[in-house]
Amino acid sequence: MISAPASIGAPVSAVDTPALLIDLDALERNIRRMQARVDGTKVRLRPHSKTHKSTAIAHMQIAAGAVGMCCQKVSEAEIMVDGGVRDVFISNEVVGDAKIERVAALACRAKVSVCIDHMDNARALAGAAQKFGATIHTLVELNVGANRCGVETAADVAVLAQAIAKRPPLRFAGIQAYQGAAQHVRAHAERRAAIEAAVAKVKEALAALERGGLACEVVAGAGTGSFEFEIMSSVYNELQVGSYVFMDADYRRNLDRDGKPVSEFDNALFILTTVMSSPVPQRAVVDAGLKALSVDSGMPRVVGHENVTYARASDEHGRLDIAEGGRPFGVGEKIRLVPGHCDPTVNLHDWFVGIRNGRVESLWPVSARGAVF
Amino acid sequence: MISAPASIGAPVSAVDTPALLIDLDALERNIRRMQARVDGTKVRLRPHSKTHKSTAIAHMQIAAGAVGMCCQKVSEAEIMVDGGVRDVFISNEVVGDAKIERVAALACRAKVSVCIDHMDNARALAGAAQKFGATIHTLVELNVGANRCGVETAADVAVLAQAIAKRPPLRFAGIQAYQGAAQHVRAHAERRAAIEAAVAKVKEALAALERGGLACEVVAGAGTGSFEFEIMSSVYNELQVGSYVFMDADYRRNLDRDGKPVSEFDNALFILTTVMSSPVPQRAVVDAGLKALSVDSGMPRVVGHENVTYARASDEHGRLDIAEGGRPFGVGEKIRLVPGHCDPTVNLHDWFVGIRNGRVESLWPVSARGAVF
Repeated sequence: MISAPASIGAPVSAVDTPALLIDLDALERNIRRMQARVDGTKVRLRPHSKTHKSTAIAHMQIAAGAVGMCCQKVSEAEIMVDGGVRDVFISNEVVGDAKIERVAALACRAKVSVCIDHMDNARALAGAAQKFGATIHTLVELNVGANRCGVETAADVAVLAQAIAKRPPLRFAGIQAYQGAAQHVRAHAERRAAIEAAVAKVKEALAALERGGLACEVVAGAGTGSFEFEIMSSVYNELQVGSYVFMDADYRRNLDRDGKPVSEFDNALFILTTVMSSPVPQRAVVDAGLKALSVDSGMPRVVGHENVTYARASDEHGRLDIAEGGRPFGVGEKIRLVPGHCDPTVNLHDWFVGIRNGRVESLWPVSARGAVF
Repeated sequence: MISAPASIGAPVSAVDTPALLIDLDALERNIRRMQARVDGTKVRLRPHSKTHKSTAIAHMQIAAGAVGMCCQKVSEAEIMVDGGVRDVFISNEVVGDAKIERVAALACRAKVSVCIDHMDNARALAGAAQKFGATIHTLVELNVGANRCGVETAADVAVLAQAIAKRPPLRFAGIQAYQGAAQHVRAHAERRAAIEAAVAKVKEALAALERGGLACEVVAGAGTGSFEFEIMSSVYNELQVGSYVFMDADYRRNLDRDGKPVSEFDNALFILTTVMSSPVPQRAVVDAGLKALSVDSGMPRVVGHENVTYARASDEHGRLDIAEGGRPFGVGEKIRLVPGHCDPTVNLHDWFVGIRNGRVESLWPVSARGAVF
């Protein structure tokens, strides 16, 4: 693990670069605002730790009212539990003997839920749970349009749920119905239509479970792009939103009902970067490239500079293009970037540098960085 | 740091996924072949550690004949020196007081070279070198077509070199002339033309230095896509190739002089991944997504399966599309991917799993993973 790029109390200008900055005021506002969306409703908030991979931020979300955390990998869930989170949902299929044994072991010391979309997987999980004397909560994943994992039909859900219910070390907990493909659809009406279609499919599955006499405690789903529709659905009762804590350049391209860029949550995450070369007035080169930010969802946005675009990322360089009217940069100047996609960007760093009023207030490790297993 | 995904001696089938596999036979062949290209010539090999970030692999390259290592970041150079490398060239501008002091400190215990493209930077480096009583070797970076860092003209090189020569704690060592934009140009003749243009510009700079009475010891550059032309140039005398040790899907798209995909080096790096869901015959989902492989240079290639493409990466999922004639996958099946771009893919992982004859032979940490400073 690389040493931290700053000291607590130092001015932001002294932070070494490239570094992952958190605007702590914005982070706290985002956490409060999302929690306020569900307070007083029947919907629970279970934020996704794959975004921040930080036990410190997880505990802020739980203190605000979240019921526990979502994780996407077994090793991520282990780190959250080791860090004091008591209720984790691995919103993903867990496949392979080594991982399944780790889930069963983890379920001895926390409430652990996982997704299932295949009968063989139910058998393997039940065997491991029995071996460890643990209960594993399971949600049957239903494909509601993301076309990734998940069974295809309501009848498939019912068959798998019945099979789970007959294996006592497993507990049938509900349905996972995340519509990942809806999250970055720009038009508000199209996102709503995608979630309405998902809701219709979930209702079919609920009816099939009811015909079989099975109660469905949890219907889980939603992301930062769609959660308002899941809240209104009267079907979903657990949100697994992640990106709202930080936001990113890509989510900002979504439009609200008035056709304006979404604005409910603030950008709380930035890459601080240094201009390392400024050879001609039209070009500057910064020290944050592919190993400091992820470009899978587009280039980062340059904060506070008109007519300047981050045009190209190579491994350790970013090229800024300065158009007519843009101010040239001095070598050594530090600037902020809003990453295109927050989750994989965070995963590149070892440290969050929390800032407030121009000073470093916290240094948090990215606890589950690299937790790919 | 995440625990290793395998035990030494275990069969490859027991490696947990996603994991970074090295075919050790292929790695050793690639190291031998590149060294053989320069043995008996006046060209030295200084491979780039930004590709593998591994002190173990650096020492294999040095044992084969490399004169030292290139690094791209100060923290990467520190890790190489701490790991026993005695001669490092940071092939990049080092900007900012904190980093410059670290370079000067490092130069007390190893031979350290850096790039310069600005007079202020020369002053700052000289000041730090004096403070630490160290000598810092410096190469003036010349823009030979990559349009990133580097001064623009031969006259600029001469002016900066003279300024360096007048500051004794700095030593003028030569010219950095890396043509990064040529590396992934597909046609052999176009890559050759790009390097010929770079060579012409370097010759102008050498003439300008000679007119000023300055000797130029090193002309450094070349990557895996172009090194054959720099070797033939009679101007370049130090190669900073990196990717040849592993190769990747993107470099394989380059064509040789016969118009065929380049074949001098073998794919030595793979992502081992598990099929975690196989919901319909046309689709399978693997456990390696954006946090296990970099897609900046295109999707990974699926090894050994006809009519199967890795079609889409989300954070922790990869979607395989199985076309007509492709065999469906079973849940739990493990397959290999060739990453699109090796350098940023390696940087996502904590461990290299070295394999030979179907068994795990070595577990090497990715020593400089996350060394972004």
